[in-house]
Amino acid sequence: MTGRDGGADLRPTPGSPVVVLVRPQLADNIGAVARCMANGGLFHLRLVAPRDGWPQERAWRTAAGADRILEALTLHATVAEAVADLHRVFATCPRPRHIVKPVLTARAGAAAIRDAAARDLRCGILFGPERAGLDNDDMAAADTLIKYPLNPEFDSLNLAQAVMVMAYEWWTAEEATPPRQLLTHKTRVATKAELDGLLEHLVDQLDACGFLRNAPKRPGMVRNLRHLFQRGEVTEQEIRTLHGIVTGLALGRRRRGRLELDEPNLDL
Amino acid sequence: MTGRDGGADLRPTPGSPVVVLVRPQLADNIGAVARCMANGGLFHLRLVAPRDGWPQERAWRTAAGADRILEALTLHATVAEAVADLHRVFATCPRPRHIVKPVLTARAGAAAIRDAAARDLRCGILFGPERAGLDNDDMAAADTLIKYPLNPEFDSLNLAQAVMVMAYEWWTAEEATPPRQLLTHKTRVATKAELDGLLEHLVDQLDACGFLRNAPKRPGMVRNLRHLFQRGEVTEQEIRTLHGIVTGLALGRRRRGRLELDEPNLDL
Repeated sequence: MTGRDGGADLRPTPGSPVVVLVRPQLADNIGAVARCMANGGLFHLRLVAPRDGWPQERAWRTAAGADRILEALTLHATVAEAVADLHRVFATCPRPRHIVKPVLTARAGAAAIRDAAARDLRCGILFGPERAGLDNDDMAAADTLIKYPLNPEFDSLNLAQAVMVMAYEWWTAEEATPPRQLLTHKTRVATKAELDGLLEHLVDQLDACGFLRNAPKRPGMVRNLRHLFQRGEVTEQEIRTLHGIVTGLALGRRRRGRLELDEPNLDL
Repeated sequence: MTGRDGGADLRPTPGSPVVVLVRPQLADNIGAVARCMANGGLFHLRLVAPRDGWPQERAWRTAAGADRILEALTLHATVAEAVADLHRVFATCPRPRHIVKPVLTARAGAAAIRDAAARDLRCGILFGPERAGLDNDDMAAADTLIKYPLNPEFDSLNLAQAVMVMAYEWWTAEEATPPRQLLTHKTRVATKAELDGLLEHLVDQLDACGFLRNAPKRPGMVRNLRHLFQRGEVTEQEIRTLHGIVTGLALGRRRRGRLELDEPNLDL
């Protein structure tokens, strides 16, 4: 779906936190932040004293279609003004020093925001300027800090990357996608009976061509074929393809006379 | 720590997967990818047929110190060549179509890579070109797909953002940071005895100034003060500060004569 300016038809997601960029320096980053927010289903963006003023054409270029987020953002002179209507304020903070506040990982922070939103509390997340990050006064406006678990030897994140991680965790906190699935567009996973039918067909033909002529080894070879097909989830479509392959190989052999088949062709 | 070129002293992390950028278009993105990799403790980068050739000065600018990753990367003509020495290949894939392979979330993918690495299997993760993503031939080189749970209405990720999410999940898969902690630099959380000592001091002074003179309400007011201090983890340093505040207020009152204290000053 596209909005009036060709951007995506983005809308606020209920309970989604406000992203507050404190003294952001580069318009490119503001646009990239909007894109990351859209990726994670966030919508509300506030800018505190952007260095180069606002609006900046460059932001729309890096927003990659997240125009509505840029159009709906609000400008603020101070952090206090930007968070005045919020109930909970989280500050992202790679290297907190001499501060005594609860510190959450990004994941726990996302869960805390979901919990707060479920109680109708409006939440915001502060992100500091590119070079220096949030200063002590900025962090005093927050009730909770968020520190990402990342390589302590290299923990300086690009601003958009920092927003990406939170947006991703926020979306994931309520995401219902099972961790593992099998894509079966236009088909479905084969039943064991269908798998057995294929194996039976294959073994018949392998017997016919002499591939299984070593009687003592035959049971183990057949079992290994069964193991091979059980390993992954084979689809009904693939079963039909494999039937065709077996038939094709067998017919071809008969047509061309005796054909040495050292290995059955099991490529899909 | 800094390396010979002023970049960070990054080293390969045991078991970390190879990041394979397939036909990347922009050198800025290659550098940004290196930075994200460093954030998540990844090191091995391979480029398949980068559009503008390699090396490109611009990549070093966006790498923000992850120079060693760029210096150690290898160039490959094809995906097959880039993954030839790997045991497991994962392909990131926002919109898989008509493909039958296991699909994992980023989190489950990171766990699978950790598991494989624990069995000494070398893993790689394919990321497609900026505009088109991986094509069907690229994905055929993978045994497993990874699809991030993200806003289906806006699921086009910047290349570096895509790498950031996997690098973050890879690091997080073995991260031991507790989800919640309290930062207590140069101090520690107060014991209950220290908290009781403060409350006793406060209540004594509140009795002395007449703040708790309403006898029927007194037990409830004292209990509420106790609740207030129990709500967050108060530090030993803060306890000492609060003792000072109570003493200061009490002495000030005595010095200045009778002072109306409608509310105890409990600001920190």
